[in-house]
Amino acid sequence: MRFDEAYSGKVFIGSHPTWEDAKVILYGMPMDWTVSYRPGSRFGPNRIREVSIGLEEYSPYLDRELHEVPFFDAGDIPLPFGNAQKSLDLIEEYVDSILEKGKFPLGMGGEHLVSWPVFRAMYKKYPDLAIIHMDAHTDLREEYEGEPLSHSTPIRKVAGLIGPENVYSFGIRSGMKEEFEWAKEAGMHISKFEVLEPLKQVLPKLKGRPVYVTIDIDVLDPAHAPGTGTVDAGGITSKELLASIHAIAGSDVHVVGADLVEVAPVYDHSDQTANTASKLLREMLLGFVK
Amino acid sequence: MRFDEAYSGKVFIGSHPTWEDAKVILYGMPMDWTVSYRPGSRFGPNRIREVSIGLEEYSPYLDRELHEVPFFDAGDIPLPFGNAQKSLDLIEEYVDSILEKGKFPLGMGGEHLVSWPVFRAMYKKYPDLAIIHMDAHTDLREEYEGEPLSHSTPIRKVAGLIGPENVYSFGIRSGMKEEFEWAKEAGMHISKFEVLEPLKQVLPKLKGRPVYVTIDIDVLDPAHAPGTGTVDAGGITSKELLASIHAIAGSDVHVVGADLVEVAPVYDHSDQTANTASKLLREMLLGFVK
Amino acid sequence: MRFDEAYSGKVFIGSHPTWEDAKVILYGMPMDWTVSYRPGSRFGPNRIREVSIGLEEYSPYLDRELHEVPFFDAGDIPLPFGNAQKSLDLIEEYVDSILEKGKFPLGMGGEHLVSWPVFRAMYKKYPDLAIIHMDAHTDLREEYEGEPLSHSTPIRKVAGLIGPENVYSFGIRSGMKEEFEWAKEAGMHISKFEVLEPLKQVLPKLKGRPVYVTIDIDVLDPAHAPGTGTVDAGGITSKELLASIHAIAGSDVHVVGADLVEVAPVYDHSDQTANTASKLLREMLLGFVK
Amino acid sequence: MRFDEAYSGKVFIGSHPTWEDAKVILYGMPMDWTVSYRPGSRFGPNRIREVSIGLEEYSPYLDRELHEVPFFDAGDIPLPFGNAQKSLDLIEEYVDSILEKGKFPLGMGGEHLVSWPVFRAMYKKYPDLAIIHMDAHTDLREEYEGEPLSHSTPIRKVAGLIGPENVYSFGIRSGMKEEFEWAKEAGMHISKFEVLEPLKQVLPKLKGRPVYVTIDIDVLDPAHAPGTGTVDAGGITSKELLASIHAIAGSDVHVVGADLVEVAPVYDHSDQTANTASKLLREMLLGFVK
Amino acid sequence: MRFDEAYSGKVFIGSHPTWEDAKVILYGMPMDWTVSYRPGSRFGPNRIREVSIGLEEYSPYLDRELHEVPFFDAGDIPLPFGNAQKSLDLIEEYVDSILEKGKFPLGMGGEHLVSWPVFRAMYKKYPDLAIIHMDAHTDLREEYEGEPLSHSTPIRKVAGLIGPENVYSFGIRSGMKEEFEWAKEAGMHISKFEVLEPLKQVLPKLKGRPVYVTIDIDVLDPAHAPGTGTVDAGGITSKELLASIHAIAGSDVHVVGADLVEVAPVYDHSDQTANTASKLLREMLLGFVK
Amino acid sequence: MRFDEAYSGKVFIGSHPTWEDAKVILYGMPMDWTVSYRPGSRFGPNRIREVSIGLEEYSPYLDRELHEVPFFDAGDIPLPFGNAQKSLDLIEEYVDSILEKGKFPLGMGGEHLVSWPVFRAMYKKYPDLAIIHMDAHTDLREEYEGEPLSHSTPIRKVAGLIGPENVYSFGIRSGMKEEFEWAKEAGMHISKFEVLEPLKQVLPKLKGRPVYVTIDIDVLDPAHAPGTGTVDAGGITSKELLASIHAIAGSDVHVVGADLVEVAPVYDHSDQTANTASKLLREMLLGFVK
Repeated sequence: MRFDEAYSGKVFIGSHPTWEDAKVILYGMPMDWTVSYRPGSRFGPNRIREVSIGLEEYSPYLDRELHEVPFFDAGDIPLPFGNAQKSLDLIEEYVDSILEKGKFPLGMGGEHLVSWPVFRAMYKKYPDLAIIHMDAHTDLREEYEGEPLSHSTPIRKVAGLIGPENVYSFGIRSGMKEEFEWAKEAGMHISKFEVLEPLKQVLPKLKGRPVYVTIDIDVLDPAHAPGTGTVDAGGITSKELLASIHAIAGSDVHVVGADLVEVAPVYDHSDQTANTASKLLREMLLGFVK
Repeated sequence: MRFDEAYSGKVFIGSHPTWEDAKVILYGMPMDWTVSYRPGSRFGPNRIREVSIGLEEYSPYLDRELHEVPFFDAGDIPLPFGNAQKSLDLIEEYVDSILEKGKFPLGMGGEHLVSWPVFRAMYKKYPDLAIIHMDAHTDLREEYEGEPLSHSTPIRKVAGLIGPENVYSFGIRSGMKEEFEWAKEAGMHISKFEVLEPLKQVLPKLKGRPVYVTIDIDVLDPAHAPGTGTVDAGGITSKELLASIHAIAGSDVHVVGADLVEVAPVYDHSDQTANTASKLLREMLLGFVK
Repeated sequence: MRFDEAYSGKVFIGSHPTWEDAKVILYGMPMDWTVSYRPGSRFGPNRIREVSIGLEEYSPYLDRELHEVPFFDAGDIPLPFGNAQKSLDLIEEYVDSILEKGKFPLGMGGEHLVSWPVFRAMYKKYPDLAIIHMDAHTDLREEYEGEPLSHSTPIRKVAGLIGPENVYSFGIRSGMKEEFEWAKEAGMHISKFEVLEPLKQVLPKLKGRPVYVTIDIDVLDPAHAPGTGTVDAGGITSKELLASIHAIAGSDVHVVGADLVEVAPVYDHSDQTANTASKLLREMLLGFVK
Repeated sequence: MRFDEAYSGKVFIGSHPTWEDAKVILYGMPMDWTVSYRPGSRFGPNRIREVSIGLEEYSPYLDRELHEVPFFDAGDIPLPFGNAQKSLDLIEEYVDSILEKGKFPLGMGGEHLVSWPVFRAMYKKYPDLAIIHMDAHTDLREEYEGEPLSHSTPIRKVAGLIGPENVYSFGIRSGMKEEFEWAKEAGMHISKFEVLEPLKQVLPKLKGRPVYVTIDIDVLDPAHAPGTGTVDAGGITSKELLASIHAIAGSDVHVVGADLVEVAPVYDHSDQTANTASKLLREMLLGFVK
Repeated sequence: MRFDEAYSGKVFIGSHPTWEDAKVILYGMPMDWTVSYRPGSRFGPNRIREVSIGLEEYSPYLDRELHEVPFFDAGDIPLPFGNAQKSLDLIEEYVDSILEKGKFPLGMGGEHLVSWPVFRAMYKKYPDLAIIHMDAHTDLREEYEGEPLSHSTPIRKVAGLIGPENVYSFGIRSGMKEEFEWAKEAGMHISKFEVLEPLKQVLPKLKGRPVYVTIDIDVLDPAHAPGTGTVDAGGITSKELLASIHAIAGSDVHVVGADLVEVAPVYDHSDQTANTASKLLREMLLGFVK
Repeated sequence: MRFDEAYSGKVFIGSHPTWEDAKVILYGMPMDWTVSYRPGSRFGPNRIREVSIGLEEYSPYLDRELHEVPFFDAGDIPLPFGNAQKSLDLIEEYVDSILEKGKFPLGMGGEHLVSWPVFRAMYKKYPDLAIIHMDAHTDLREEYEGEPLSHSTPIRKVAGLIGPENVYSFGIRSGMKEEFEWAKEAGMHISKFEVLEPLKQVLPKLKGRPVYVTIDIDVLDPAHAPGTGTVDAGGITSKELLASIHAIAGSDVHVVGADLVEVAPVYDHSDQTANTASKLLREMLLGFVK
C-alpha cells in the first residue's frame, strides 16, 4: 500500500487518479536553461504541487470545487538538461497527445520559452487561436545575444506563427525600445502596466474565439511574487491577477489551454510565490474549464 | 542592577512596570500544536516584542502616545507542549483574572485556536458580546479530521456560544463550501475578500455593543504577511488593515478585548511580519482603549 | 501517462514500483506535535525524498547499488495533527503490517517519539531485541512537564520495555543530570560525546542479536545538521556517522529495522541536512539489509 | 583586457566609460554607523549595481533610454568606518566636485544621514533650494540620545539650513509627537501617509525652483521594500513611488540632484529591494535629467 | 503577575533572580559600530539569551548544574549608537562595579573592541593579569585606516597595557604581516591555526596566575560559526573549542573573568551560532567559576 | 575619478591594475547551463570577488603577500546563455591568449564543465600535462542522458585527451558504479574519500611534471561548502583542503594553471562558501605561482 499522494504534496491537491477520465491534464515543464539572469524555475512545478496541500479545494470566488472539473496531475515531463531544442520538441509532442484526446492542457513552467511549443501544438488544432499574455516583460526579442531559443523570445515567435494581431499582452513594463516599436508596427496589442481594465476592453472582441492564456508570474509585483528569475517593480497585486482570471472566466471567450510559468523556488522565501501560484492554478482550472 | 528590559526588546516597547496600575494587559499565547500545515506561531509573541524596539511610541494616525494608555506586557502564558485542552484551560483562567480586575485583555497568538478560551472568558463577562473577526479563512469547521480542538474551528465554536448572528467575519477568502453554506444558513455574517468597506457598513449596527476583535494576520496578503502558517493570495494591504482598525477606533462600538494571532517568525524573512504586527498592536492598543 | 515519480523527487530515488516484491519498506512518520522547542520535522520525510534526486544509486563505500536491495517508498503515514496517542497507534499498526510480511522497516521522522511505537512492534517480533541509539540527547525523561508522550521520552520507554541493559546510546552530549544518573543505576549503556570508537567496542557483544538502529540526526554537529529542532554543539561529523553506519554494516549484528528522525527542513538552509539524510538512508539501506 | 564591467554587475548598467563627458555622476555613500536599529545599508550601493544587470536600459514609462542621459558610475566614496563626521566631510567634498563641473549628482546610500552633506553642497550652489523628501520617518530629531550626528536628524538639519518652509516631506508615517509638532510650528510641509496626491498639489508651487529629491526606500511598504533597516507597515507601493517620480519628471520643477538611501541587502531576501531600487534609479535618472 | 522570564528566553536560562546574591554577572555589550566589514553583533547577546531555552542546565562534560554557580543575567548595557568612546567608558564603569563586589564578569559581545575596557577594569584589580585569547584574527593593529578605536585593535591595546609577554593568542589564522612580526618582536605569544594542543602547553606556565579569557566566536571554522562578521576558513570545530574550555577549567589557572564576542544573528541561519554560543557560555560559567 | 574598485569588491582584493605586467590572470567562467540538479554557479565568480574584501592580503600559512605575485582580475568572460559549445570555445580561446603571454591562468567557475576547454588549452602547451582533481564526484560520465556536454563529464574527457594514467582524482565519494569501474580498468587514479594523505603519496611521483589543479568546491563537506549545486555528505574540512593546497605548494610539481569551480551563491547563506573560496584562491595563488 502506498499512502495517498495528495496527502503529502506529491500531486496537486484534488488530482484524479487516472489520466483517462480526466478533462484537464496538469503537467510540469521543468526547463530553465536559456534564462539570461537567475535560473531555478525548473523546480517550480514540484514546489507548487507540494504547497498545494495548504489550499482548499473550493473557490469562494467561483463557487466551484475541484471535483467538478476532473483533472489529472501528470507530473513533470522529463526534459534533457541544457538541450533546449529537444526539450521543446518533447513538450510539443506531449501537448499534442493531450489535445488529441480532447483534454485541456494546463501547464506549469519552467521558463517562459516552454510556452512556445505549446503555442505550436495549440495552433495546429485551433487555426484561429488568440493569445492572452500577462507578463512584466515583452518577450518579443528575435534572439538573445545571437541565440533564437531564449526565454526572451516566445511572444515574438507566436506572433510570427498566428499573426501579431492575434496576440494580446497585458501588464508589460519592461523591454527594449525596439520590442515596443516592433509590436506597434506589427499590429500586436500591448497594454502597458495594467491588466484588468484593458483586459475587460479586449475580452468582448474575442467572443467565441479559442484563446490560450499564458501567465508569467512576474506580471505580479515583486512584493507578490519574489520567487521568480527577473523581478520588476511596479507590477499588479495578486488580487488584481485573480480578478483578471475571473474576468476571463466570466467572459465569452473559449479558453482552450493555459499555463503559468517562471516560479523559481530558490528565490521564494517561505514558499510565498509557490503558494500564490497554486491558488492561481486552482482558479484557472475552475474558471477556464466549463 | 538589571538594565532596562524595553531597551533590548524583552517587553513590548512602552510597557509599564507593574500589572497592578495598568489598564491593559498584553500577553502571549505561545501555542501551535493543532495546526495542520506549517507550525511555528508559538514563537510569534516574543519576536513581536523583540522588534517593537523599532517602533515609535507615538501614533500619527491617532495622535496618541503609548503612555496615555498604561499597559503591562505580562510575557507568555506557560503552556504545556502538545496538550491542547490544558493549554486552553490555562488561557481561559488567565483572561478571567484580567477581566476580574477590570482590565482590557490584548492577546498575541499562537494559532487561532487560542482565541476560543478568550471568547469564553469574554462571554462570561459580556453576555451580549459580538465578535469582529478578520481572517483569510472561515475557521468554521466543526472538527479537523476528527479532532474538535483544531485551529480551523474557533469561529464555529464561538458562533455556537454567542449565536452566529453575533459573529462578523471580514476578508474571508478560503474555506470549504460547507463552511460558507453553514454560515449562510446559520445567519452568521461573512464579508468575502474585503474588510474596510463592509466593516464600515457593520459598525453602526454594533453601536454601544461590547465587541471583541480577533485578527488573524493572514487576513493580510502574503506580500504583507509572509510570516504565517497558511498564506493565501488576494488579501488586503497593511494600509487597509490599519484603516480598518482606525475605523473601529473611530466608531461607537465598545471594544472590550482583542487579539492578533498566527505570526510565525520562522517563515518571516527579516521580521517583516513581526514588525507589522507590532505596529498593528500599537494601533489596536491606542485605538481600542479609551 | 504519469511521468516517472522518481524523476521529480516524489519518491526516494531508486524506489521499486510495488510494495509486494520489495524487501524493505521506506515510510515517513510526519509528526512533530510534542516537541518542546522548534517544530517542523513533520516535513522532513518529503524533503528527504525530494532531494534524493541528487544522489547516485551506487555506494562507493559499500560497493553496492540500490537495485540490489529492492525497497518500496510507501510515502508518509497519514497522522492526525496534534493527536499524539492516535498517531503512535497508527505507526505501530503499520510497522506490524511490514513485519508480518517479513520486510525490513526503514522509517523517517518526524520527532523522535515516533520511534516508540516502532520499538513496540519490533519487540513483539524480536523478544531479544537490542537498540543502538545515536543522538545528542538522552531522551530518557519519564515525562516532559507532566506529559508522558513527549519527544524527550522514547529511550526511557524502550528501556522499560526491553530492559535498560539492552539499550546502547552513543554520542550523547545533552540531558538532565537525573537522566544520566538513572541510566547508570539502571544498567543502560551510554557513550558520551563519541560514537564510532565506543560502537566498535559494543558491536562484538551484540553478535547475532536482532538490533534496531535509531538515529536522531542531531547526533551530528550543528555544522553538519543545522536543519533540526534542537541543535547542540560538539557533535560528530557526517564522515564519522557514515563510518559508524558502515561499522554496523560490517559487523555480525542482525539489523532488523532502522530509522532516521528529526530532520526539519524549515531550519535547513539549501537543504543541507536533507541531502545528508538522504545519503545516510541510502547507506543504511545498502549496509543494514543483506 | 578586462571584460566589460557592466556585464558582470560591477557598475550600474549603461554607465558611460568616463567621468569627464558624463552629465550625471552616480556614486555610493556606504555609511551606516549611526543607525539605531538594524545596520547594513553600507552594502546597498554595490548590491544595487550588481542586480542592475537584470534591468532593461529603456523606460517604457518615459520612452527614453539610458544612453540619452550619459551618466558615469563612480563607485563608492571610501568612507572611514565608524567616523561619522569625517565621512560626511568626504561626501560634501565629493559632491562639491561634481557640482563644480556642472554635473548632476545622483547618490546611493547608505543611511539617510549621508544626505546631510549633500544638502550642504547643493545649498552652496543653489541658495533658493527646495527639498522633496519621501520617507516613512520624519527624520526631524535634533539628536538621538545625545548624538547630533544620527540617521534620525538629516531633515531637521536641512530645515535649519534652507528654512523649514522649503522642505516638503511625503509619505511620513512614523516619528515622535514632538517632531510632528515642531514641523507644524516651524512651517515645514509634511504630508502624512500619502505621496502621489499631495505631491501633485505641491509641484506647481515649486515651478522653476531648484529642487533636490531625497528618497528613503522605506517610504515603500515593507511588502515592497523589506530590505531596509527600519520597516514600517502602511506604506505606498512601488507603483505609486514610480508614479511619484514620473510626476516630478513631468512637472516644471528644476531637479538639480537626487538620492535614494537605506537599501540594506542583508535583510533583502532574493534582492527584491535592490532590484526595485535599481529600477527607481533608472527612472530618476531618465526623468529628472533633461 | 509577569510570567517567568526564563520561560520565554528573556534572560539566559537558569539566571538567578537577583544581582546581589549572584556570584557571576552575565551582561551584554551590544556595540558593533567600528567593524570594517559586516555589522550586526549588537544583536548577539539577546539572541543568545533567546535560544538558551533549548539548553539543558546540566553539563555532562563537567558534571555540574547551573544552580551550583549562581549567576545573574543583567541584560545589555545601554550603549550610545555610533559613539565608540562613550560606549567603552560605560562598559569599563560597569565592569568596575562588578569587580568591586567581588563578582565574576562574564560578558557577551558585540564586536571585539568591547573587550578593551574590560581588560582595563580587570587590570586595575589584577596587576599580574594574563590574557588567553582565542580568535581567527590577530586584532593587533594600532589603528584601522587612521582610527585607533577599531575592532582590529583590542589585543594590541591590551598588550600595551599589561605587557605583550602576558598575552597568549590561539587559533590565529588571519592578520597583516606586520601584526605577526610585531608580536614576534614584542614577545607576545601567538599559536597559529591550533588551539587545544598549544593551550595545553601554556596552561602550566600560567599556574596560579589571574587570567582573563576572551573568545572571538570566529576562532571556530565558518562551518561551526557562520553567524559572525568576518568568517575565515580553516578554523577549529566546536568540539575542539569545548575541549579547550574544559582544559582551562581543569587547569590551575585562576580565571577571573571572561567574554565571548562577535556573534551576529543576521548572518546566522536558524540560530546555529547563537545556539553554540549559549552552550559555550554555559561551559565557561560552569568551568571557570569554582 | 572612479573610486578604487578593490575597495568595493569589484575586483579580487589586491588585483594589479593592468593585464600586461601581471604574472597571473584571474578570470571567471560564469556558466551553469548543463547542470542536472541545482543551477546558480554562474554567479559564483562575482560573489567571490565581492567578499574578498574581508580577506587579508597576507597568508600566515605561506608567509607571503599578494603583491609578491602580481595578478590581474580580468572579470568574467562573457558567455552566451544556454549555448554550451560556444561558451566552451570562448573559454579555450581566452586561456590560449593567457598562455601565449606566458601567464598563469587561475579560473573561477561556473560549473565543472568549464574546466574542459581549459584542459584543452593547457594540453596544447604542455603535452606531458598531469591533472590533480579534487572533487566529491567522479565526473567520469561519457554523457548525461544523451548529452556529451554535461557537468558530469569533464574528467572523462580529459582522461581521453591526456591519457587516464595522467589523471589523479582525490576525495571522490559519489559516482556511478560504471565510472569507478572504468577508472580502474583505464588506469586512472582515484583516491576515494580522502585528499591529503593520498595526495602526499602522489606528489613525489609527479616531480617536475607540469600539473593543472582543478578543485570542485564540493570536495568539501556540505558543512564547509553549503553553497554549491550538489552537496554530498562525508567530505573533507576546509582545514584539510588548505593543507592539501599547501602540500602541493611545498612539493616539486610544476603547477601551470588551476581553477576552483561550482560555488553557487544562491544556496550559500551569508556567503560562507564564497568567503572560503576567496581564501582558497589566495592560497592557490600564493602557493602555486613561484
